[in-house]
Amino acid sequence: MTDSLSTQIELASRPQGMPELKNFRTVQIELPDLLEGEVRVRNEYISVDPYMRGRMSGAKSYIPPFELGETMGGGAVGTVIESRAAELPVGTLVSSAHGWRDIAQGQAAEFSPRPALEGVSPSLYLGLLGMPGLTAYVGLRGIAELREGDVLFVSGAAGAVGSAVGQFARLMGASRVIGSAGSEEKTELLKQKYGFDTVINYKKGPIRQQLTHAASEGIDVYFDNVGGDHLEAALDVLKPHGRVALCGAISQYNNEKPEPGPDNLGQIVMKKLKLQGFIVGDHLEYREEFETVVGEWFRQGRISYDETVVEGIEEAPRAFIELLQGGNIGKMVVKV
Amino acid sequence: MTDSLSTQIELASRPQGMPELKNFRTVQIELPDLLEGEVRVRNEYISVDPYMRGRMSGAKSYIPPFELGETMGGGAVGTVIESRAAELPVGTLVSSAHGWRDIAQGQAAEFSPRPALEGVSPSLYLGLLGMPGLTAYVGLRGIAELREGDVLFVSGAAGAVGSAVGQFARLMGASRVIGSAGSEEKTELLKQKYGFDTVINYKKGPIRQQLTHAASEGIDVYFDNVGGDHLEAALDVLKPHGRVALCGAISQYNNEKPEPGPDNLGQIVMKKLKLQGFIVGDHLEYREEFETVVGEWFRQGRISYDETVVEGIEEAPRAFIELLQGGNIGKMVVKV
Repeated sequence: MTDSLSTQIELASRPQGMPELKNFRTVQIELPDLLEGEVRVRNEYISVDPYMRGRMSGAKSYIPPFELGETMGGGAVGTVIESRAAELPVGTLVSSAHGWRDIAQGQAAEFSPRPALEGVSPSLYLGLLGMPGLTAYVGLRGIAELREGDVLFVSGAAGAVGSAVGQFARLMGASRVIGSAGSEEKTELLKQKYGFDTVINYKKGPIRQQLTHAASEGIDVYFDNVGGDHLEAALDVLKPHGRVALCGAISQYNNEKPEPGPDNLGQIVMKKLKLQGFIVGDHLEYREEFETVVGEWFRQGRISYDETVVEGIEEAPRAFIELLQGGNIGKMVVKV
Repeated sequence: MTDSLSTQIELASRPQGMPELKNFRTVQIELPDLLEGEVRVRNEYISVDPYMRGRMSGAKSYIPPFELGETMGGGAVGTVIESRAAELPVGTLVSSAHGWRDIAQGQAAEFSPRPALEGVSPSLYLGLLGMPGLTAYVGLRGIAELREGDVLFVSGAAGAVGSAVGQFARLMGASRVIGSAGSEEKTELLKQKYGFDTVINYKKGPIRQQLTHAASEGIDVYFDNVGGDHLEAALDVLKPHGRVALCGAISQYNNEKPEPGPDNLGQIVMKKLKLQGFIVGDHLEYREEFETVVGEWFRQGRISYDETVVEGIEEAPRAFIELLQGGNIGKMVVKV
């Protein structure tokens, strides 16, 4: 029996506002022997994602909150190192939701086999080819119903979801792609490498004024990762019958008390807008299409991606806090 | 040639906040002789509706603003008194959008013939059987996609649209109908006569607390005529995948400056809600279905209605101001 000691990161206390390192605790536990039908997996990469902030609060949400003392759940990708399940032999690359631990163990059904990717890191299954990529795809196809010729605005454009949204939208026929990000480094990268037509640095001035200027012809679709003032700005410039896919509101996650919303919701009636919140888990019917379509774009070299890689499982809390502060370009992952 | 003198009410100046009588001007104009294809109509009833407030501002909206000196447009119903169009002989009952004038004149195509209603006033074509009724129908069927068993909340429930929404929803299979209104007289009427299960008097306390209490099991559909704090309250109690038809925001129309919006828009993502603004003019494909279905309900005596009738064309501005202050029960019309 090897690797029966698992290093895991638990929720130690619930954060007030921005999470701090003290909210997490690293523990080591001895795993029991495998039962029939179980596998043991050595994770290579684990995922830190904005939605996890919601689960750290005790409040009811679309997914249950983490319990105190529970290991931080989330995406992980690794290799089977011991197996009592014929369908997942030792050596298989798998992804799971087992989260922040170096060794994961459970029923084979909790792990999805993934083809090894030639020349690229398996961490892509946590990003472009995983949940964030599927989120971008579902939001554009299923929620915002992006059409040929649409002008799109996406906030949080340098993030894992946002950078996929901008590229997918262009490949789906958008005529113009506008993004927002929080540094000059990010805005330049999005324009140079990701093919955005215009990128607003929201730290340089009010997003509302900047977007009105950048999108003087209006936008058809807004993909919202940020909420708050970004949503307000988008409502101003959406064209009649515009559509908004609401995916997240990272600007609001660490508020200690609720903030007033946009002052221009009257635009929803005036311009007959549709706003729809979604989570990717409700739309897994797009998964096969996503894997086919985006897989093909990827093989054709039509998609760029970046990762921000932090090394060491015990650094996951720091990576997560950095993510919430906008310290990532592209997908933030932790290399175990 | 008779009745060639038309009394009309024009927009004299744009209101700041709540409109005042001085914003309107009554004028008399001499109508030219009819051209071939035209008709002259003596209006019996003219309509005052909340959406007209938007047109009094200079701002761009889904319909163009009234120009200064322009006659206040809007629904009207009357009888053809002179005709040079074979399809609309003298004596035909017609509705039009010719608005606040006693004598209307124009191409026959601008007037829709309406069957005379046995035992009821033709003013119903301005209310339950007209635009407000169709608005209620479209919002429930086309936008909120009301389903059998849904719990519905409608704000402004005593208004022309709201009182139709509550009744139509019940007849479409809603399991519970909750409304809000601004007086005890209205709340009692809605419960006794219109079959609402629960009606909140929003003047008696914060709507948010009252609705949370009244809708402890949650709501599936919110039909919004009011905006502001009513929308905020509804977002709190909507169930996952709930739907919001945004029809108007009468609470906001007279704001002199924008007010902050709901502080809980994060619920849209958390609960995967759909919010959609609409105006009835975009959904005239429902008109035939509406006339068939609602006409049948009406003949079966399954629908109640009230009207608030103000007498005299020159009283239209006063009626309109009262409407914006919530002084009506059911449809507000002016008897010419």
